[in-house]
Amino acid sequence: MNESAIKSSNLNALVNSIEGIEVITDLELVRKLSQDYHTFSPILVTQLADKVADIVIRPANEQEVIKVAAACSKYRIPVTVRGAGTGNYGQCVPLHGGVVLDTSKMQDIIWVKPGVARVQAGVKLAALDKQAQKLGWEMRMAPSTYRTASIAGFVAGGSGGIGSIRYGLLGDRGNLLALKVITMEEEPRILELRGDEVQKVTHAWGINGIITEVELPLGAAYPWAEVIVTFPDFMSAVRFGKDLASADGLIKKEVGIFASPIPQYFTALRKYIPEGKHAALLMIAEPSLELLSGLVKQYKGDITFKKSAQEATKGLHLAEYTWNHTTLHARTADPSVTYLQSIFPNDNLQTIEHMYRHFGDEVMMHLEFIRANGALASPGLQLVRYTTEKRLKEIIRYHEDHGVFIANPHSYLIEEGWKRAIDPEHLKFKQMVDPYGLMNPGKSKTLNQS
Amino acid sequence: MNESAIKSSNLNALVNSIEGIEVITDLELVRKLSQDYHTFSPILVTQLADKVADIVIRPANEQEVIKVAAACSKYRIPVTVRGAGTGNYGQCVPLHGGVVLDTSKMQDIIWVKPGVARVQAGVKLAALDKQAQKLGWEMRMAPSTYRTASIAGFVAGGSGGIGSIRYGLLGDRGNLLALKVITMEEEPRILELRGDEVQKVTHAWGINGIITEVELPLGAAYPWAEVIVTFPDFMSAVRFGKDLASADGLIKKEVGIFASPIPQYFTALRKYIPEGKHAALLMIAEPSLELLSGLVKQYKGDITFKKSAQEATKGLHLAEYTWNHTTLHARTADPSVTYLQSIFPNDNLQTIEHMYRHFGDEVMMHLEFIRANGALASPGLQLVRYTTEKRLKEIIRYHEDHGVFIANPHSYLIEEGWKRAIDPEHLKFKQMVDPYGLMNPGKSKTLNQS
Repeated sequence: MNESAIKSSNLNALVNSIEGIEVITDLELVRKLSQDYHTFSPILVTQLADKVADIVIRPANEQEVIKVAAACSKYRIPVTVRGAGTGNYGQCVPLHGGVVLDTSKMQDIIWVKPGVARVQAGVKLAALDKQAQKLGWEMRMAPSTYRTASIAGFVAGGSGGIGSIRYGLLGDRGNLLALKVITMEEEPRILELRGDEVQKVTHAWGINGIITEVELPLGAAYPWAEVIVTFPDFMSAVRFGKDLASADGLIKKEVGIFASPIPQYFTALRKYIPEGKHAALLMIAEPSLELLSGLVKQYKGDITFKKSAQEATKGLHLAEYTWNHTTLHARTADPSVTYLQSIFPNDNLQTIEHMYRHFGDEVMMHLEFIRANGALASPGLQLVRYTTEKRLKEIIRYHEDHGVFIANPHSYLIEEGWKRAIDPEHLKFKQMVDPYGLMNPGKSKTLNQS
Repeated sequence: MNESAIKSSNLNALVNSIEGIEVITDLELVRKLSQDYHTFSPILVTQLADKVADIVIRPANEQEVIKVAAACSKYRIPVTVRGAGTGNYGQCVPLHGGVVLDTSKMQDIIWVKPGVARVQAGVKLAALDKQAQKLGWEMRMAPSTYRTASIAGFVAGGSGGIGSIRYGLLGDRGNLLALKVITMEEEPRILELRGDEVQKVTHAWGINGIITEVELPLGAAYPWAEVIVTFPDFMSAVRFGKDLASADGLIKKEVGIFASPIPQYFTALRKYIPEGKHAALLMIAEPSLELLSGLVKQYKGDITFKKSAQEATKGLHLAEYTWNHTTLHARTADPSVTYLQSIFPNDNLQTIEHMYRHFGDEVMMHLEFIRANGALASPGLQLVRYTTEKRLKEIIRYHEDHGVFIANPHSYLIEEGWKRAIDPEHLKFKQMVDPYGLMNPGKSKTLNQS
């Protein structure tokens, strides 16, 4: 598939055949909607610089999605489905032009019941959360971009985030109930995938059909207080984080650990985190707050900021300094900063300490405690002071040589991510739902070679 | 301390000095209130056969407790504090006569707020649960005796139970907020222990002051469905249990695994569990039910019983077939059955399988999946077809020789329990709150020797 293969006559025919559906051709807007947050990576910025769709289509409902899928199939035009474009791997960037299918008009919260919700693809995570909380429930997990990110975008391009310390990752059994998917065929089918079947489409970067609806289990809502704890010693902060993460009696939603000088990038938080101090940013259920202090004391920490659940609804949100918002804040202060995504070996924190000491401020340690696949983990989203591509590769290699798995955020290939392979179930399902290989082409090494 | 040391003149003086407080002297009732469920153990039945209090005192409130403590201290009379007497280690049996202090009149639910409750010692677990559920909360964990057991009894003599698969044990940080304790002195003090301090009194079998109030965090209430899954193969049932227990996205409150022929003891459940089949008894949040079926299928199980949360409020409760209710049902059918309490090594289920095959029906495998100290565990409450004390000891020895830790339920000594030692903090605190050594004397090997 090559962009030059898309004849403008085909594009015109496509546009004519979907009359009444919003089509964007304005070059600036098309360019903007061909982007995501791969800009965190200087490597991807270069590689994806000239990648842009020919047009953007914004269907308003499932019927319009079906029409677009039918027409794109008929005219063999590549389709890159887009939520809010908050991904960091270039998931939403069309490598071969064609159509960006923007789901942002599909904003219906279809229903919210105790413990379960069903929504259209483009619903913002924060919007669902607000509705769910009225019933005493909430989203189980969300990326730090929850205000703008869409649910189908999260399902297709994300893996977990704030809340994963309690519920594990989106791919862990139990965190997703059903997906409605439109196939990319001349006569598109509507598939309802339920239960374990959903995994054929989750985290597949939009190569496996167009998600139009998502049904997901909710978590019981807790009143979440926000807390900053500072530590003079980094490894104390890490051990504190691990103990807190392990304490099943302490209910928490977020345990992020930030080595100095990272907190200095958090302009609004700087007054709570003295220079040279390491910080834990926490979301803790209010009934667990009192018992947190024993643990803080044990690791010689200081609680410098505490916001009740009531207050936490207003003003700054600690959640928006965690996960990849950390990287965002750092890059706002210093655009040369980039990052890694790492899984450390299960070695009782030794490798984390080694990397922390080995790289000093060149690779600034940022850990997020989560549960994944039934176990505790503390993936790193380290900030890297970027100099050259060669040096970045050296840094990655050094980590890999020490048993650290790097889910490379400097590649747009699925196979460089968390699983270091494309899911065979994804491939099998793709043959069925995208027979012409039109969906987000170029993102899979395996598919590119076949 | 020896029972003959209690002069009847002292007892009379005690009774005279607490006028207005209920005193029970009726021999049958005193005998009954000197008992607990140590009767599960043929060894303890023999050892504790003649152990009985001189009188039972039933204070109605804190002021009365203080008067009793003062008088017992003044006249040096041993005090064994009692909740509902649902313990299995003889915790409530007075070894040296004296007073049984029965807290069952102290039934006030002081307050229930979102996420936290404070209650008097004698409140039944089920009563608090009912109140909490009206606000959308529930007790985090409870033994299978939750209908009759009292909260202070659970704190003093229990360790976890139904719900521990989600929140860990009572001793895990975060599961208990505060205790009010009356000291055993001529001028009793009222101590409010908060945070980590509570551990000086929890699971201390009533040797460390009289608990009059308990403040505990609640869990968000889920609609709990009840499910029985049967398996043709025992190890499939165990692996199913472990996978379910590990799936952070599947919300559950109880995962109990029962080898054949144990389910045949469950008269009311027999129709759902064919002879020869092994069973999992589960409490699962309704939104997780649909996703359970994939896991059931994976291990070739059959769902034979499913009761919605709505229906589960009526009729039989699966919870009352788990934990030590399993033993109770077995002993109802066959009074010669006794049991073990075991912690298996972290060996990927090999030891469990070995013991299952080695002992056959002599030691019937019953596992409860829990989280404890931040990790998954599957303690055994195996049922044993009792023949002789010698053979029971052989069985225990064989387990220990294979790395299984036995929290011996055939001993009334604290040091034979889960921790195989008395907590040094308990000892330190005891010197302060019970200077005359009057509280539940004889239950600690360490104290007996000192």
